[in-house]
Amino acid sequence: MSHAGKKRKLDKSRQDRLYFDSYSDVTIHEEMIADHVRTNAYRTAIFRNTELIRGRAVLDVGAGTGVLSIFCAQAGARRVFAVEACSIAEQAEEIVKHNKVEDIVQVIRGTVETVDLPEKVEVIVSEWMGYALLHESMLNSVLYARDKWLKPGGLILPSRAELYITPISDPVVEDRLFFWYTVKDQYGVDMSCMSDFARKCIKNTDITVSSVAVEDVLSHPARFAELDLNSVTVEELRSVKGPFRCESFGSAAVNAFCVYFTVTFPCPGLPQTLVLSTSPSKPETHWKQAVLYLDSPVEVVQDTPVTGEVRMYPSEDSARHICIHVDYTIGQQKTQSKTFSIPDWTPDTQSL
Amino acid sequence: MSHAGKKRKLDKSRQDRLYFDSYSDVTIHEEMIADHVRTNAYRTAIFRNTELIRGRAVLDVGAGTGVLSIFCAQAGARRVFAVEACSIAEQAEEIVKHNKVEDIVQVIRGTVETVDLPEKVEVIVSEWMGYALLHESMLNSVLYARDKWLKPGGLILPSRAELYITPISDPVVEDRLFFWYTVKDQYGVDMSCMSDFARKCIKNTDITVSSVAVEDVLSHPARFAELDLNSVTVEELRSVKGPFRCESFGSAAVNAFCVYFTVTFPCPGLPQTLVLSTSPSKPETHWKQAVLYLDSPVEVVQDTPVTGEVRMYPSEDSARHICIHVDYTIGQQKTQSKTFSIPDWTPDTQSL
Repeated sequence: MSHAGKKRKLDKSRQDRLYFDSYSDVTIHEEMIADHVRTNAYRTAIFRNTELIRGRAVLDVGAGTGVLSIFCAQAGARRVFAVEACSIAEQAEEIVKHNKVEDIVQVIRGTVETVDLPEKVEVIVSEWMGYALLHESMLNSVLYARDKWLKPGGLILPSRAELYITPISDPVVEDRLFFWYTVKDQYGVDMSCMSDFARKCIKNTDITVSSVAVEDVLSHPARFAELDLNSVTVEELRSVKGPFRCESFGSAAVNAFCVYFTVTFPCPGLPQTLVLSTSPSKPETHWKQAVLYLDSPVEVVQDTPVTGEVRMYPSEDSARHICIHVDYTIGQQKTQSKTFSIPDWTPDTQSL
Repeated sequence: MSHAGKKRKLDKSRQDRLYFDSYSDVTIHEEMIADHVRTNAYRTAIFRNTELIRGRAVLDVGAGTGVLSIFCAQAGARRVFAVEACSIAEQAEEIVKHNKVEDIVQVIRGTVETVDLPEKVEVIVSEWMGYALLHESMLNSVLYARDKWLKPGGLILPSRAELYITPISDPVVEDRLFFWYTVKDQYGVDMSCMSDFARKCIKNTDITVSSVAVEDVLSHPARFAELDLNSVTVEELRSVKGPFRCESFGSAAVNAFCVYFTVTFPCPGLPQTLVLSTSPSKPETHWKQAVLYLDSPVEVVQDTPVTGEVRMYPSEDSARHICIHVDYTIGQQKTQSKTFSIPDWTPDTQSL
C-alpha cells in the first residue's frame, strides 16, 4: 500500500494516453474529425460561403488530414493550398487523391511562415483553436498568413472569437472530500481526518480541461474578450483581457471558474452568423471547458455579484502555453487573485 | 488543425491526471480505499484469521493510511508495526489516534529494509500488488520482511499469488480503425485510407492497463505461474514464467492477450480460502487487467488451441518495472513472440 509503489495504479488515464501515444498522429485527427460540432460547423460555414469561395484561391492553415481543404474544393474553390507542417501531410495527400480533388487541393508540407505560395488567396480557413482558445493555438500563424497571403477584403473562416467566464460549483471536489467521511460506515475505520488533509492538498493553479455540467453553472456567462480575426495583431494576443460581471442564479458554493470560447463564421446573405460554441450549455466538443479551481468554496445567494477581470497571456516558459490570471470579487468578499496555467508533464512533476 | 498544436487536446485524461497530481497523495489512497473488492478482501481475511492474530505482533509492510493495521488491531493484535516510507505515514498516525488504537498500532516511518522493530512478529500483512501483479510491486520488500522479521511458521496475508493469461478480442481497436470508413457518410469526404495508416501506427509493445469486458474473453484463462509467499525468493522473482494452453470458446478474432492475477488468503478452520481476484469475470478492481496487443488480429474458431509461454521479468532500465514476454501459437500459425512493458512518461515520449 506504499503510495510510491501504487502511484501508477491510479493512472488508467495515463495508460490510455501512453497506449495511444504511439498512435497519437491518428488519435488526434480521429478526435477532431469525430467532433461533429466542430467538423459540421466548419463544413456548414464553408458551404454557406460558396459564393465567396467558388472560383477563388483558398489557404488552409494547419490542414492536418486536409478535410477542410476538401470541403472548400467541394464548395467550388479554384485552388486550395493545404499547408501542414507535420507528417500527417502525407495522409492528407492520399486523402485528397482518394477524393479526386488533387487538381484543386495542393498539400504543401511546411509551416505557413516559411512556405511559398504561387499566388495570394481570397479566403483563409483554419481550425486553429486550442484549449481555452489560446493554449497551444495556431492563431499567430493564421495572423501571419493573413498579413502575407490574404488579398485585401478577403474572407477569414472563422472571423471572430469570443471568450467567456462563469462561476461554477464543481461537485466532484466536495464529493471526493466527503468520501473520507463514508469510510467508517464501509469498513469500521474512521478516516474522516483525511478530508482536512485532502482539502489542503487540493489547492492548485492548474487549468483543468474537463466537461462542466450545465447544472453546475452558477450564472449567465460573461464575455470578457473578443478577437476580430480581420484586425487583431500578434502584439494584442500578448495580453487578452477584459472585465466581467456575473450574478448568481441562486444559493450555491462557488468553487471554480469556467472559461470557454466561441468562434463565429460570417454567412453572407443569411439573417444570422454561424457560431461554433464550446459553452457548457451546448453539445460537448473535444475542447470541453477550462476549469480554474478556487482555493476554497465561497457561498453565494441569488443575485450575489461575481465580478473581476480576466487576463490571458503567454507563459514566460513557453510562448505557446497560456496563463490565465483572474482578479475576482464574490459578494462582500475582498478581491482575490489567482494565476492558472496548463502544466507540462516533465520529469519533475512526474516525481511529485 | 496542426496536430502539433492539437496534441494537448486529446489529453483530457492527461489533464485529469495532472490536476490530481498535486493531489496525488490523497488520490492514490482514495482509489485504494474506495476499491471495495480489495479493501473488503483484506478486512475479511484479517477477521477470519482472528485466532492467529489475537494477542500477536503484526507487521504491515507499506502501511499507507494504516487501514490494514487498524483492521489487525480490531482483530485483537497485541502490537502492529505499520511501516510506511512515504509522508502519508503522518496521516496514518493521525488516523490511528482517531480510531483510538495508538496503544496497539505503531506507525514507523521508513523502509522495511532499514527500520528496526523491537521484536519479531507472528503475522505479516501487506497489500503489495502492482499492475500485472509485479509492476512496481513491493513484493521484494515483503520477502525481505519475511526473512528478517517473521517468526518461523508465521502467517503471511496474502499467502499465495497466481498469474493468468487469456486471449481476448478487444473491440475498441477495430472500432477505431472502422471509424475512418464512416467519415464519408458523415461529411462527404472519403477518409477510409486513414484506416490503413492507423493500423500501421497501432502496433506497439506497451502494456495497457484497462478493464477487459468479460464478453471479450475468448477462452478459459490459463494459470501460468504461482508464487507461494512463504517460500518464494527474490531470485525467483527475476523470472516468473510458465506455459499456457487455452482453447477458443468460438469464432472470433484474437487481437490481444489479457494478463491478470489473484491473491489468496488462508482461512484456517473454514472449508475454503479467500481469493482476491482481478479476473475480467469478477467485479472490477483498481488493478483492472493488463492488455497486450498483438500486431494484427488472428481468426480462431471453436476449440482452436492458443498455446505458449509467458515470462515476466524486471526491466533492465528499472528493476521496479516489469516486462512481459509472450511466445504464442494460435491454431496452425507459426509461433510468434512479443515483449511488452509499461512505458514511462519521459520527455522523449512526450515529444513523439
